[in-house]
Amino acid sequence: MTTLAEIVAFLDRELKISEIPDYSGAMNGLQLENGGEVSRIVAAVDASLPVVEKAIAANAQLLLVHHGMFWQGTQAVTGAFYRKLKLAMDAGLAIYSAHLPLDVHPVWGNNACLIRALGITETKPFLDWKGLPLGLQGKVDLAREDLLKLVEHAVGAPVHHCPGGPERVRSVGVVTGGAGSEVAQAAAAGVDTFVTGEGPHWSYPLAEELGLNVVFGGHYATETFGVKALAGALAERFGLDWEFADHPTGL
Amino acid sequence: MTTLAEIVAFLDRELKISEIPDYSGAMNGLQLENGGEVSRIVAAVDASLPVVEKAIAANAQLLLVHHGMFWQGTQAVTGAFYRKLKLAMDAGLAIYSAHLPLDVHPVWGNNACLIRALGITETKPFLDWKGLPLGLQGKVDLAREDLLKLVEHAVGAPVHHCPGGPERVRSVGVVTGGAGSEVAQAAAAGVDTFVTGEGPHWSYPLAEELGLNVVFGGHYATETFGVKALAGALAERFGLDWEFADHPTGL
Amino acid sequence: MTTLAEIVAFLDRELKISEIPDYSGAMNGLQLENGGEVSRIVAAVDASLPVVEKAIAANAQLLLVHHGMFWQGTQAVTGAFYRKLKLAMDAGLAIYSAHLPLDVHPVWGNNACLIRALGITETKPFLDWKGLPLGLQGKVDLAREDLLKLVEHAVGAPVHHCPGGPERVRSVGVVTGGAGSEVAQAAAAGVDTFVTGEGPHWSYPLAEELGLNVVFGGHYATETFGVKALAGALAERFGLDWEFADHPTGL
Amino acid sequence: MTTLAEIVAFLDRELKISEIPDYSGAMNGLQLENGGEVSRIVAAVDASLPVVEKAIAANAQLLLVHHGMFWQGTQAVTGAFYRKLKLAMDAGLAIYSAHLPLDVHPVWGNNACLIRALGITETKPFLDWKGLPLGLQGKVDLAREDLLKLVEHAVGAPVHHCPGGPERVRSVGVVTGGAGSEVAQAAAAGVDTFVTGEGPHWSYPLAEELGLNVVFGGHYATETFGVKALAGALAERFGLDWEFADHPTGL
Amino acid sequence: MTTLAEIVAFLDRELKISEIPDYSGAMNGLQLENGGEVSRIVAAVDASLPVVEKAIAANAQLLLVHHGMFWQGTQAVTGAFYRKLKLAMDAGLAIYSAHLPLDVHPVWGNNACLIRALGITETKPFLDWKGLPLGLQGKVDLAREDLLKLVEHAVGAPVHHCPGGPERVRSVGVVTGGAGSEVAQAAAAGVDTFVTGEGPHWSYPLAEELGLNVVFGGHYATETFGVKALAGALAERFGLDWEFADHPTGL
Amino acid sequence: MTTLAEIVAFLDRELKISEIPDYSGAMNGLQLENGGEVSRIVAAVDASLPVVEKAIAANAQLLLVHHGMFWQGTQAVTGAFYRKLKLAMDAGLAIYSAHLPLDVHPVWGNNACLIRALGITETKPFLDWKGLPLGLQGKVDLAREDLLKLVEHAVGAPVHHCPGGPERVRSVGVVTGGAGSEVAQAAAAGVDTFVTGEGPHWSYPLAEELGLNVVFGGHYATETFGVKALAGALAERFGLDWEFADHPTGL
Repeated sequence: MTTLAEIVAFLDRELKISEIPDYSGAMNGLQLENGGEVSRIVAAVDASLPVVEKAIAANAQLLLVHHGMFWQGTQAVTGAFYRKLKLAMDAGLAIYSAHLPLDVHPVWGNNACLIRALGITETKPFLDWKGLPLGLQGKVDLAREDLLKLVEHAVGAPVHHCPGGPERVRSVGVVTGGAGSEVAQAAAAGVDTFVTGEGPHWSYPLAEELGLNVVFGGHYATETFGVKALAGALAERFGLDWEFADHPTGL
Repeated sequence: MTTLAEIVAFLDRELKISEIPDYSGAMNGLQLENGGEVSRIVAAVDASLPVVEKAIAANAQLLLVHHGMFWQGTQAVTGAFYRKLKLAMDAGLAIYSAHLPLDVHPVWGNNACLIRALGITETKPFLDWKGLPLGLQGKVDLAREDLLKLVEHAVGAPVHHCPGGPERVRSVGVVTGGAGSEVAQAAAAGVDTFVTGEGPHWSYPLAEELGLNVVFGGHYATETFGVKALAGALAERFGLDWEFADHPTGL
Repeated sequence: MTTLAEIVAFLDRELKISEIPDYSGAMNGLQLENGGEVSRIVAAVDASLPVVEKAIAANAQLLLVHHGMFWQGTQAVTGAFYRKLKLAMDAGLAIYSAHLPLDVHPVWGNNACLIRALGITETKPFLDWKGLPLGLQGKVDLAREDLLKLVEHAVGAPVHHCPGGPERVRSVGVVTGGAGSEVAQAAAAGVDTFVTGEGPHWSYPLAEELGLNVVFGGHYATETFGVKALAGALAERFGLDWEFADHPTGL
Repeated sequence: MTTLAEIVAFLDRELKISEIPDYSGAMNGLQLENGGEVSRIVAAVDASLPVVEKAIAANAQLLLVHHGMFWQGTQAVTGAFYRKLKLAMDAGLAIYSAHLPLDVHPVWGNNACLIRALGITETKPFLDWKGLPLGLQGKVDLAREDLLKLVEHAVGAPVHHCPGGPERVRSVGVVTGGAGSEVAQAAAAGVDTFVTGEGPHWSYPLAEELGLNVVFGGHYATETFGVKALAGALAERFGLDWEFADHPTGL
Repeated sequence: MTTLAEIVAFLDRELKISEIPDYSGAMNGLQLENGGEVSRIVAAVDASLPVVEKAIAANAQLLLVHHGMFWQGTQAVTGAFYRKLKLAMDAGLAIYSAHLPLDVHPVWGNNACLIRALGITETKPFLDWKGLPLGLQGKVDLAREDLLKLVEHAVGAPVHHCPGGPERVRSVGVVTGGAGSEVAQAAAAGVDTFVTGEGPHWSYPLAEELGLNVVFGGHYATETFGVKALAGALAERFGLDWEFADHPTGL
Repeated sequence: MTTLAEIVAFLDRELKISEIPDYSGAMNGLQLENGGEVSRIVAAVDASLPVVEKAIAANAQLLLVHHGMFWQGTQAVTGAFYRKLKLAMDAGLAIYSAHLPLDVHPVWGNNACLIRALGITETKPFLDWKGLPLGLQGKVDLAREDLLKLVEHAVGAPVHHCPGGPERVRSVGVVTGGAGSEVAQAAAAGVDTFVTGEGPHWSYPLAEELGLNVVFGGHYATETFGVKALAGALAERFGLDWEFADHPTGL
């Protein structure tokens, strides 16, 4: 058992919460305090009501998520948001959220974990957003269908793809989550195959015209890595239990 | 005793919550639910932590305020905001906020109450903001020092003023709260004396040059009328108790 | 055989091209002229290079699409865009695009066609965008799984869904294409089940919390109806041949 | 006697008029020329019509102010503005204004003068605005009521305060003028007591929740230091007379 | 002799100064008062220093202009602006400016005067700007070279033109001043010949491609009509003298 | 004969196409490819339809221009734009455009060529736009009328000027094209004479008040230098023919 304050200080520092830019709704860091101690952590992708219920059922005092509670902006404490806060407060469950700081972490990050799972060890930053590289790229020499199998094995499910590029893959760019809108920027960065979570319909014909392979591994599926890695690291450092609360969206 | 839902439906309708525009941080309407019944109401100007503590000490289930909890935009549920929500939720205290809808209500509004207290009964809308008249104006025939005494009697304390206009007051405009920045618009509307709550330093020399008297009655002091009138009306309609929680700022 | 000018005049008038608002990249109307006659039309969802090649192979003089060539803004006539224009110009292929004007057309529109395919005949406008209702809503009384089967039959493939709402469906809202980001607006409009093409990952947990069923029928799949209906209507009116060039994206 | 041009060149250089950022209405530097010589200076806070009349009555050729004539933006030369310019031009009175450049000057600045008057000699920059630190902070070890007495002695009048912080003051931040809206930024900078001129009503409950003492010394009163110090320095350097034209607003 | 106040009230009303929109720098209405009477008016296009000197030399008490003194936004009263105000104030010269309200006046307007000089009597509004039609259009049946001669006769000098449209002119649009940037809007309005004052270089090749004749009559030259007509009307109504102060720019 | 790709690579590198900022419509670089070889170049100021016809008549495979085809933003490929692209594609004519990169090139730039033609050899950067100096300035000692003659000789036609500055010219600033709106910035940079292509009417009285000579050499006329110099350099390097297609606008 350790204090919430110690864990928050560790996470804020390791994830560079105050330095890394993000979308205004992300609100990285502690989103709900519990006023006390932590002995068990639950990791999850989204801080939605069903996930909070699972975390409480698991007797956790800290829920560690990638997508926090504030993406919709200021909201009244009524309805589902009231129930979520009331349940969490009554159960003494704190919530900590890390979005881009977790995507880009060199060891526990979603990108780092996924690209390692593809067997790529030499990587460099990829796809700039406000000065922050959102992903990683690296060299391979693989048939496209073999790369697809590696991604499917990593995310644990069949994936969708656009075969707009070469059948022999030599340069892969990875951005977990919903980066499909960035196919033009990905192509301009020189990769021949772009692995991301999801993309809008128009990203497909655009990738075809740009001569780019795109692998859509699932927004949810490509973002389960980071929270698991982070919870594991916390558990080891502070001598805590942890588990993953799976609540997939299929998107 | 009545349900929170009935009270909220009544207030939303009477105050035209969904129709009247406001600043983005106002978030008019129910800001925190309690999941239950209401038998006692506390009215106050600000939904600050000391006020919430007073409302709980008074055994209220509903706190009715003019300034709600969300002016600072999206905020993590930590520190003072955590303590405030935790206290209120544990005590079953709901919070309902009405800002401009309460300023401009024809009967219970801050403006209507204050201008009545000055003995002015024939009024017309005054000082447009996005199509909404923020105040009321009316005719009088008074020495300026007599008007000052009327305002001081209404707000219950000495007031500050800028004697930039005539010593004989004939046309008064009233906007409760912090409308001092609107002295130019007030002068353009043809009043010779502008009664408001507070204003920045520069509103004083500008009023002097515009030839306008300005009476600064206090932001807090000029906005205690509405929540009291509204709580009284609710108490009468629904057969409830109510009291006012005074927590002045001196501003 | 008829002139391109006659067809364009008919389409501009029937689809209210100059009245209906749209995103800046849509550029509704004639996007590429051919300087001549039309005897054969090809309908398609996207004006991408493979689709243009199919239209030329089909000996068409007019390609009718839902998504035109200008979504990326001003672009140099080089690379894929050069090849596309060069092929089309050399083959005398004109391109006409209709985006929101085709989504919302009362007879040939994507929404009208899809909601008819669900057996709903009494409909009203739904989901405002800049004063334009983007979709249609109507009453049913169906088990959720039966509605899912109707959508799957209409789009010709299995669909994905979020079961956040009731198992008995009574009020359905339909917006073809990529309207998943509008789940909050859809819920506020009072439907219990929202049928659209695609949505971002976060639309799923949000719909769960809002208590809304969402059916994701595919962006491409839900937008094949309009261009087919329109091409059929043109063929009948002007005595022309037509066919559909299928180039699905799976998104 | 010296030329206006010499004085302006000295002031522009010493106050870094062309380097220090400011609000668009400040228009730092010479605001009205007189085409001649200067033998007598009047210092004042505001360049309002009564102040200009006092400066002319004092036979001054230069009025040195903190708040100039252009805060309202472009304005026709009619009414009070016409009378002010006409009087000043006929009397050969030039007007020089220095806003933020005077607030932040290390020797003659409003902040430097006020914090010295509180007995604090080791200071560091405080409260960033566009890269410019608007104030100064320093360490003390005083009862809160003793600090209040020091401020009251410095500004020559009773002051208003919000006792939201500790009774023992150890870290003071000073920003003269109207910086009350910055209580959150002040608290984040780590001071326990914030001395400023004025603040809006909402700064009081926010300071309470943030655990911050705020001392409101008066916008006018905290900004009389700089123009006096500057006029004295000019008088000494160029062998001129000077006096202060007091025209308080009570705000 | 009459009072300035009477003239200003007449002009504000007749020109609809408070109703007609304009660019922010125009500042229509009285720009400088003189505190007295008017017996002689000078009309001019620009309120520049040489023009003010000419008006004073002509013993005028009112300068009536199309382009006032505030196009550059807020400016210190130094240098040329100081000299201009000082000269005008010392001489008791008021300045009244009317920009778009004078361009579009149905009788005294620059457009109305110029299109009458081309012999066109039936006109309708032309070229919308924020809901205000900036010009007038009408039907003719003239060789292009004959229209050119009419414009040259009206403005009293040779004009420049772009022969992008038909040699036989049937539909003319007139917008005095600098409206050359609006050639696309003019062509869309259906005129074959656009008469304006000046245009940027790119308006010429664009007009060529749009198939539009453009006649550039000079910004200054096409805007001398309105101030003359207005001064004449004032002189007649109030029994005053007037003259035109010519200060052409050749642009 | 050489390939288009080689020429484009050379131009992109020498003109720093990807580094130098520009207006969004400029779209510097290759605007239309031809898929092949180049043996003959035509240089021109504008890529208008008559110019494209001249280039094709001259059997060119590359048209090199200062003002490209995309200033009006996204446009349908219909009307004049269709005819222009169709003609160019059928004739195998590529189009390359360089706007600010060509204005500011140290050797082939419009500014460098024009200031050399005035006999000024020591120059420094002048007139900042987003960090890019748009022009060049240098010292001379000439009567104003002698400078006028030099400009007229350089552009090959009489020029218009505003004699607002000294008769003896000592400091000249040159910005080719339409920079007349920058007279205030030019005066602030310390030149006494500003040579540019064109300016709006109001630049003339403003220059008078600022005490600045302005020479308006013609937008078209001052921008013929760069494309000629560039085409000559290409011809020499790659062993090609070239000619200039003159199509003046008189503006």
